[in-house]
Amino acid sequence: MIRIAVLGCGRIGVMHANNIAAHPRAALAGVFDIHAPAAATVSAKTGAPVFASAEAAFTSPDVDAVLIATATDTHADLLEMAVAAGKPVLCEKPIDLSLDRVNRCAAVIAGSSVPIQLGFVRRFDPGHAAVRRAIEAGDIGDLHQVVITSRDPGMPPPAYTAVSGGILRDMTIHDLDMARFILGEEVTEVFATGSRLVDPALMDKLGDYDTVTVVLKTASGKQAIINNSRQAVYGYDQRVEALGTKGMALSENRRPHQMSLHTAEFTDRAEPLLNFFIERYREAFDAEISAFVEAVEAGRAPSVGFEDGRLALVLAEAALKSIAEARVIAVKEIV
Amino acid sequence: MIRIAVLGCGRIGVMHANNIAAHPRAALAGVFDIHAPAAATVSAKTGAPVFASAEAAFTSPDVDAVLIATATDTHADLLEMAVAAGKPVLCEKPIDLSLDRVNRCAAVIAGSSVPIQLGFVRRFDPGHAAVRRAIEAGDIGDLHQVVITSRDPGMPPPAYTAVSGGILRDMTIHDLDMARFILGEEVTEVFATGSRLVDPALMDKLGDYDTVTVVLKTASGKQAIINNSRQAVYGYDQRVEALGTKGMALSENRRPHQMSLHTAEFTDRAEPLLNFFIERYREAFDAEISAFVEAVEAGRAPSVGFEDGRLALVLAEAALKSIAEARVIAVKEIV
Amino acid sequence: MIRIAVLGCGRIGVMHANNIAAHPRAALAGVFDIHAPAAATVSAKTGAPVFASAEAAFTSPDVDAVLIATATDTHADLLEMAVAAGKPVLCEKPIDLSLDRVNRCAAVIAGSSVPIQLGFVRRFDPGHAAVRRAIEAGDIGDLHQVVITSRDPGMPPPAYTAVSGGILRDMTIHDLDMARFILGEEVTEVFATGSRLVDPALMDKLGDYDTVTVVLKTASGKQAIINNSRQAVYGYDQRVEALGTKGMALSENRRPHQMSLHTAEFTDRAEPLLNFFIERYREAFDAEISAFVEAVEAGRAPSVGFEDGRLALVLAEAALKSIAEARVIAVKEIV
Amino acid sequence: MIRIAVLGCGRIGVMHANNIAAHPRAALAGVFDIHAPAAATVSAKTGAPVFASAEAAFTSPDVDAVLIATATDTHADLLEMAVAAGKPVLCEKPIDLSLDRVNRCAAVIAGSSVPIQLGFVRRFDPGHAAVRRAIEAGDIGDLHQVVITSRDPGMPPPAYTAVSGGILRDMTIHDLDMARFILGEEVTEVFATGSRLVDPALMDKLGDYDTVTVVLKTASGKQAIINNSRQAVYGYDQRVEALGTKGMALSENRRPHQMSLHTAEFTDRAEPLLNFFIERYREAFDAEISAFVEAVEAGRAPSVGFEDGRLALVLAEAALKSIAEARVIAVKEIV
Repeated sequence: MIRIAVLGCGRIGVMHANNIAAHPRAALAGVFDIHAPAAATVSAKTGAPVFASAEAAFTSPDVDAVLIATATDTHADLLEMAVAAGKPVLCEKPIDLSLDRVNRCAAVIAGSSVPIQLGFVRRFDPGHAAVRRAIEAGDIGDLHQVVITSRDPGMPPPAYTAVSGGILRDMTIHDLDMARFILGEEVTEVFATGSRLVDPALMDKLGDYDTVTVVLKTASGKQAIINNSRQAVYGYDQRVEALGTKGMALSENRRPHQMSLHTAEFTDRAEPLLNFFIERYREAFDAEISAFVEAVEAGRAPSVGFEDGRLALVLAEAALKSIAEARVIAVKEIV
Repeated sequence: MIRIAVLGCGRIGVMHANNIAAHPRAALAGVFDIHAPAAATVSAKTGAPVFASAEAAFTSPDVDAVLIATATDTHADLLEMAVAAGKPVLCEKPIDLSLDRVNRCAAVIAGSSVPIQLGFVRRFDPGHAAVRRAIEAGDIGDLHQVVITSRDPGMPPPAYTAVSGGILRDMTIHDLDMARFILGEEVTEVFATGSRLVDPALMDKLGDYDTVTVVLKTASGKQAIINNSRQAVYGYDQRVEALGTKGMALSENRRPHQMSLHTAEFTDRAEPLLNFFIERYREAFDAEISAFVEAVEAGRAPSVGFEDGRLALVLAEAALKSIAEARVIAVKEIV
Repeated sequence: MIRIAVLGCGRIGVMHANNIAAHPRAALAGVFDIHAPAAATVSAKTGAPVFASAEAAFTSPDVDAVLIATATDTHADLLEMAVAAGKPVLCEKPIDLSLDRVNRCAAVIAGSSVPIQLGFVRRFDPGHAAVRRAIEAGDIGDLHQVVITSRDPGMPPPAYTAVSGGILRDMTIHDLDMARFILGEEVTEVFATGSRLVDPALMDKLGDYDTVTVVLKTASGKQAIINNSRQAVYGYDQRVEALGTKGMALSENRRPHQMSLHTAEFTDRAEPLLNFFIERYREAFDAEISAFVEAVEAGRAPSVGFEDGRLALVLAEAALKSIAEARVIAVKEIV
Repeated sequence: MIRIAVLGCGRIGVMHANNIAAHPRAALAGVFDIHAPAAATVSAKTGAPVFASAEAAFTSPDVDAVLIATATDTHADLLEMAVAAGKPVLCEKPIDLSLDRVNRCAAVIAGSSVPIQLGFVRRFDPGHAAVRRAIEAGDIGDLHQVVITSRDPGMPPPAYTAVSGGILRDMTIHDLDMARFILGEEVTEVFATGSRLVDPALMDKLGDYDTVTVVLKTASGKQAIINNSRQAVYGYDQRVEALGTKGMALSENRRPHQMSLHTAEFTDRAEPLLNFFIERYREAFDAEISAFVEAVEAGRAPSVGFEDGRLALVLAEAALKSIAEARVIAVKEIV
């Protein structure tokens, strides 16, 4: 049993706490939230103790590992504390909205062998992971083109949008990581374009975009296309497609059930897509915990780590620069 | 080029005439219909001559083969004439609504080697035929269970229904032949049940059914289930499913195109099914002509012949007896 | 919080215990198994106490309700004890393999208002339940025909098969209940036929069948068709289809994920179906507990109760008689 | 009956000739090919006369309209002759590989009211056209993003590739027109990137690409993404997707039939996609002729005309410039 403390009891922290409590090889070592009642609620349901502070979790001998699900601007500090305390850590993405801060964090933790896993949960989705496995198994031959469709069901609350760091750092970053995961080699060139179509007034005000296309290319010429929208009213649209010399692998959307209706006007009418990430990536969140537990048990580096978090942010910065300059950005232009 | 005369210029005869005219290895030798203007219209479009009588087609040296698409009660007579004239014949189903008449026809043509093909067009449907091929290729192992869903889009005109011979002889007969085609061995037991649900008043009046289930069994225990309805408002529902020791083969429905709509209320909303048989079995009608042409060219028996037509009617009679007596009927009870 | 004791810690009991422990409105009050280590294992993971006997659960003031997941031949006794103790009960199907015993149990508990829920879990499957809801909402008009495809992935262990009561009482019984659930009116006539195709030697020895078709009819003429096989190598095949005057509702199969492979030889190649019931009906098992909790909280009869369990067994008996006599059995012939 | 002459009896010309001959409201007025036997073969099958020259078709009083399916470098000349002769013309794409030549042709025919239809056949595909109709009907609200997947089954013969004008002018041009058709407003910005992955040696030699991504944007910010590959071994991959404020419309691929195979290793295994354009766009080629016939009958401009052909080439030139300069090209930079 790996005893994991959960820091942050917002929506995603609570989900992680429940998953850990129910996990056959993990136990919930305790929870913390700066808003005490949030932690107390989780404690009441699970029986796990409440820590008085994040520090308390890092120093507790009853804590084998820590999951960071606090506000984004605390991630890097807590990550550094975890590494200093020698506690393996599963950190929600992003590490930080500032690439500078991430680079400083990288410098601080350099040389440490403490397992760090980044919360790019989609890598653990059974369908998306099966695309990657199909490539590794040679089922589609040499990879040529990747298409990632990633659309949220609707705009987040305006208050969130304002502090999100913008769609590239907040939403696209997941797809940039997915592109790296599927491509299997590093991206060298980035092109992006953004539009303000869903909520033009808000986007104008924030200098943000709600509709984005990103085109990535590797040194060998492999292409990855990401299409993002903040609003797909038919549900959380999450597809990954990989074309190779021998075929195509396609991870399609999921619905809450498989009932379809057929009438004189239509056939095949099904439910809207699973909505939102907690439902859509339920199995992935479980598998993410399992992967973390295995890495901690084995004392080895998780399959998705700090540098993956940093590189996804580098690509997001390149994409922002590409939008600004209407040209292809070489990744080496960003540091 | 096989020169084929078409007898009967109703909806299905006209379709056959056009298909023959456009066929790369067939030519339309001429047409006949007791209603002269119907034949004249086909002639005008295709340039093929009009025969003064069915006899004229049978005696013409410019006719290599004959397609019978006249009224059902003339099929057996014309079939006998074709055989007497030595003209290969493609005869629309059914041979006759009376098993007695069919048996007498069988006696008349016994011993002849004139190629006779029965118009069980669905055997030539690319999807249904692929189910049969999958079985023959061993893809699903030993066959255990067949499920045939066969539902018309809506009730035929009452005038047609009254002379159709009833749903078993008119509609189910196609599925009984499909069951024999897929099973690959003879049916020995028949159970059927009928309901009056779509148009109870008319069905009561005619002593007919609009909703039917038939269960067939072979000597080795293989099962085939047919479900029929006269009314599937979502279109012409035509599915064939075969379960075996190594898997299942499934021939699914077809739609006019593959556009689907996804909104906040639903996903995957597609068009109603192709409606009706001329659209749904377009490729099958083409392939049926090709198979006939090949048989005539080779001077060999077509893959689906007179005895298949007779045996499907025997099963229909058995099913009617089963409905009447609420018990399993051994096929040998019908002769 | 409804505190539920789980009796029986076999595969399905353990699953129920975990679901109850994780349920937001239920708590696991304790567990019991005649094989003590089985109960101890569940206790260790969940922290719930072990009862020394089934009786101890019924008499405990810390138990609000009981879930019976013990061996089939103990169900009726425990059910009677639960009712005598006034404890609401969720009882796994079947109540008993003997209709006599079930009828005696019915007499014993007659007049009690203790909530009894039968474990026909498929009624709670989101897809199948959506078919029922579509009918109730009028989406498909008046119901005419129901088709239930229900095939296990493979033969159970021979030892289980020998004591299962036969495919009709063990496996088809779920589909008989589903037919009643979807039909929404009582079945009056039953036809069934059985074959020995998957494991003829074993079936001969046991007098059982591995491949079964059942046709049900209501007084108004509605038809339901069940096709069963003990072996669908492509996975646990669970489909429910309902045809009505205005359309069709179709609950389709589910796969572990939505990745498909497309190559020069094929397209759309997907994973085998979810296998087996614990995976396929995961959401349904959760919803079943929720429904039970709500019924207990409200002190009202669950939506699926003792009489549903009895009537499904009556239909199974009628089907067995139909196989034996090769004729339609009126349900009133069975009492 | 509109009497149409077909110029050019290569693969696509022969197909058009057969379609016209079978069309209920068109007749094949005659055929011409610089390679006389090619024209003779079509004449033998259809009975239509052979013209001694293209000029003969333009001057014949028995020709109501002309279809140009000759070599690309003759299109503009023949188009100008058709307009001079006052014969409505359906011209296969592209008008010419040189934008200069196209612009000169535009000047020559300026002011003429002779109906000219460009052979962008995909606009007539029932599925793709249904996407456009869904947008026009308001079914998906305001359009935001279009995704066009367009992949050939395999590389064309090297001899063809060498004279094709490159993937952008030869293959992508269809998708550029589709983007304009679906977007419903003019493209103002173009980004493209190309890779040499399928046949790098040949592509290097020709200075061409086999894998291309194009991103288009309109003045209002609508985005369209095209992904092209010269090699999709699973068949001719042709999809069109449109995302709007109220939903998504998706035109999916088509298969030769709907048979799927399900075994212990997989489910849903279907046939490769229809291959190639003559099969995939069969209905579209028919509908294209119908649309032309209607325009000629009505004496009005076809729905897709000369300027559409010119603008698609302008976008192709912009895309080529974007590849060369690794930046967004404003369409107004190309004239």
